[in-house]
Amino acid sequence: MIERIAILGTGLLGTSAGLALRAAGFAGSIVGWNRGAEGAQAARAMGAIDSIATDAIEAARQSQVVLLAVPIYATLDWMEQLSPVLGPEHLVTDVGSTKGQITEAAGRLFNTPERAAFLPGHPMAGKERGGAALGDATLFRGAVWLFTDDPSWQRSPQSAALAKNWRELVEAMGSKTIDIDAARHDELVGWVSHLPQFVATALSALLEEEVGDAPELKDVGGRALREMTRLGASPYSMWRDIAYTNTEAVQRAIEALEQRLAHLRENLRTPELRDEFEQANRFRRDQ
Amino acid sequence: MIERIAILGTGLLGTSAGLALRAAGFAGSIVGWNRGAEGAQAARAMGAIDSIATDAIEAARQSQVVLLAVPIYATLDWMEQLSPVLGPEHLVTDVGSTKGQITEAAGRLFNTPERAAFLPGHPMAGKERGGAALGDATLFRGAVWLFTDDPSWQRSPQSAALAKNWRELVEAMGSKTIDIDAARHDELVGWVSHLPQFVATALSALLEEEVGDAPELKDVGGRALREMTRLGASPYSMWRDIAYTNTEAVQRAIEALEQRLAHLRENLRTPELRDEFEQANRFRRDQ
Repeated sequence: MIERIAILGTGLLGTSAGLALRAAGFAGSIVGWNRGAEGAQAARAMGAIDSIATDAIEAARQSQVVLLAVPIYATLDWMEQLSPVLGPEHLVTDVGSTKGQITEAAGRLFNTPERAAFLPGHPMAGKERGGAALGDATLFRGAVWLFTDDPSWQRSPQSAALAKNWRELVEAMGSKTIDIDAARHDELVGWVSHLPQFVATALSALLEEEVGDAPELKDVGGRALREMTRLGASPYSMWRDIAYTNTEAVQRAIEALEQRLAHLRENLRTPELRDEFEQANRFRRDQ
Repeated sequence: MIERIAILGTGLLGTSAGLALRAAGFAGSIVGWNRGAEGAQAARAMGAIDSIATDAIEAARQSQVVLLAVPIYATLDWMEQLSPVLGPEHLVTDVGSTKGQITEAAGRLFNTPERAAFLPGHPMAGKERGGAALGDATLFRGAVWLFTDDPSWQRSPQSAALAKNWRELVEAMGSKTIDIDAARHDELVGWVSHLPQFVATALSALLEEEVGDAPELKDVGGRALREMTRLGASPYSMWRDIAYTNTEAVQRAIEALEQRLAHLRENLRTPELRDEFEQANRFRRDQ
């Protein structure tokens, strides 16, 4: 049974995980580490972590489960650092938005009987702004938490039990767990998560340029405009690593949308427009 | 003072206007006409109209204010039919989403001292689905109601008073009124209303084709995907006339977004991506 958890990175997701674990009744210890002292102090003040670690590696060694809640390249860095110092009595898991490189590293650096287990995870939850202060015990409730486990990995019995226990904690936080192949994961989120973000960014940036100084704008834009540009507030720092680690899938998705928009633009006065609306209607009905 | 209103078209907007007028304390008569009997009966059952007219022209003649709440081409048709049968004791107004053609027709067919006044209006409120059953007394509360009045029009004193009184009723329904030139209106809504709709339609249609049958999809798509595709449910019947009557502005806006997306796609791994995110962030901060 998991009794000692270290959360490396007490931003929005790390802090929310600490709060959600407590809300789910987790009674063990939670130690937190964060690159900036302010975020760690906020997480502790909110009750998401019990104590602040100054040495992340030492905190990881003294825990059973290490939750990496940092951007993707930072996750890959921690994986390199933690692999040699943790053993088969440890589980490392993460919340990264792309899983190809992380799952590859998990197979290379972890998941042998002599090493710690690494369970690659991705909760489909977030906000357009980050930071510990927005941490929310209910963030994962009703969300899907994807895992890209590789069935061929050979884990020690202890770390395998920790992985099973972590899945139970994720469900106790209110999430539905789904297992999916890492390549399929990155392709799917390229369509349903990354494409919507980059569209909102492009649309917001374009509108800032074209009508950003129109005095009527603030009033005229209604709910539809707010919704379609809400993700425009997402910071580059959250999306840079996603753009770097899922480049091809995102490029394919964006290019397909460019073509779709061109088709629509060329058919504003033809019956093809009806077909596009009906196809879009079907997508919404299926949701 | 306005005491007799005819609403031609008791869909979402017409029914909501009737309900909002009542909620604002309007105590006069409201007669409704609708192409389909079901919509008229629903509007009457909801209390949006007092009675159902079988002859729309006759209902208009017996009213002081005629609210056209039908698609744009139907609005233009009614304008042709009503112009010869109404006089300077009448006001006609509308809720159409594009104002170029309607405002041109208003100058040609109305707004002389001998004829009825026509006040072109556009409440920035709606839902992604239409119909009387979704009628809502609060639909216009907090929204902007745009008018594209032409200051050179010469109206009879009676019809000018009715136009002033209608503006007061619109404010009593909870809307903020803004006057804007018709050409500027169509350009602005092309950016902030029509472009978001066509993007949502293209994105939804694309996702239906690419991942519509993915079993994980329903679960994986979170709030962001729902918001970015909500407008995908909008029916062609509501948008066909907008596409036809604001074609050039919409084409310009869509093409600009295609270029923006291509730029973003080509710069997923360059510092340009940061600039795009920061520009998008600015748009949201200004909202």
